[in-house]
Amino acid sequence: MEQAKIRLYVDQPLAAGQAVAVGEGQANYLFNVMRLTPGAPVALFNGQDGEWLARVEQAGKRAGILRAEVQVAPLRLPPDLWLLFAPVKKARTDFIVEKAVELGVARILPVLTRRTQGERTRADKMRAHAIEAAEQCGANIVPEVIEAQPLDRLLAAWPADRRILWADEGLVGTAAAFAGLPPGPWAILIGPEGGFTEEERGRLTKVPQVTPVSLGPRILRAETAAVAAITLWQAHLGDWK
Amino acid sequence: MEQAKIRLYVDQPLAAGQAVAVGEGQANYLFNVMRLTPGAPVALFNGQDGEWLARVEQAGKRAGILRAEVQVAPLRLPPDLWLLFAPVKKARTDFIVEKAVELGVARILPVLTRRTQGERTRADKMRAHAIEAAEQCGANIVPEVIEAQPLDRLLAAWPADRRILWADEGLVGTAAAFAGLPPGPWAILIGPEGGFTEEERGRLTKVPQVTPVSLGPRILRAETAAVAAITLWQAHLGDWK
Repeated sequence: MEQAKIRLYVDQPLAAGQAVAVGEGQANYLFNVMRLTPGAPVALFNGQDGEWLARVEQAGKRAGILRAEVQVAPLRLPPDLWLLFAPVKKARTDFIVEKAVELGVARILPVLTRRTQGERTRADKMRAHAIEAAEQCGANIVPEVIEAQPLDRLLAAWPADRRILWADEGLVGTAAAFAGLPPGPWAILIGPEGGFTEEERGRLTKVPQVTPVSLGPRILRAETAAVAAITLWQAHLGDWK
Repeated sequence: MEQAKIRLYVDQPLAAGQAVAVGEGQANYLFNVMRLTPGAPVALFNGQDGEWLARVEQAGKRAGILRAEVQVAPLRLPPDLWLLFAPVKKARTDFIVEKAVELGVARILPVLTRRTQGERTRADKMRAHAIEAAEQCGANIVPEVIEAQPLDRLLAAWPADRRILWADEGLVGTAAAFAGLPPGPWAILIGPEGGFTEEERGRLTKVPQVTPVSLGPRILRAETAAVAAITLWQAHLGDWK
């Protein structure tokens, strides 16, 4: 089977013979930057129909048409894991989103805390970054990115059956607790740089779904804690086990 | 105990009453950028003597003197883990070095492979980046950074008693193998973007110290694989367990 070098997320249905229109941004990338011509293969995914081999049918400056030929991979869903994190500086927030996609989470929820900078939480930018990460890492879904919400509001409406794994930087010790976690729907919670306030910590310890865990004896930055916590969760409860 | 906000790596001995001279770069940072004046506290570490509270004694434009007062933390050595990795693009290489320091490795060895870009392997730059990471994350040692070596030469002289955990991107499966790893000196090996060549893969499988492991069903970028592999090793065999 011919292997497409370019993978593209589209928000249109994919099926054999289906025409897929590409707009200005993608047309520029495919036909100007990558110089694809009619007949060239492109891999497409839409988060629903798995991965498809498509070919360029019309290549224009501002638009084009691809035609899906055959499914080359079934839909691969990540485990039922959400990532809650307090956005940090731009480059590190991008990094957290990118790594969450690569490591496999189903939903990304930015959380506003007392020490979070509000202007760093544009969900549309995070969505675009999540799509780019999925295109590059071979995932054929894109995690849902929710609008940022204050921690309090999020906890007040938290689903009863979803546990929260709180990477608590106040707990400096061992990561042994991961081995004892029960299966089921989970969310990982990563605090802001500087940590949660005492009030927030008090609030978190009162939520029955919350389990605090330690990520070893060193203080980790937010993005490191996110990758380490998702990795350990995946190895113990997710699809790496 | 007064808490110093600034942590600085110095390559001089630390003891009670010891004077520590700072050169132009550090003087600029301490006295111009951070505007410290005589009497201000600074935390110092040198990778040997733990962490010390020191105070500014002389603050000049191009040099200054700090005086160590009291040890505030003992030396905290990381476990006996080395990280071997093929340098990737600058920002991602910096990231790997930074995360290795945060997560706790003793030695960093850049490896030249067929698909590594040689110009990206300046050990002096990596060393500077490792020092900066240690200053920021609270580590009081800095992992040793070795000059980049070709993979072949490294394997030919590899110590008999140090195992190599090869994060093999060709093994797409589970991370269960981590649970069965024996304790002792280890090194983690992360390949270049694009992977090892078939010839290199053949060479690796013939080295008796090498154990290939999978990091789950998704293809991870080099820096993600580095963080995930160090995390799982730490949780199973290192000081997170």
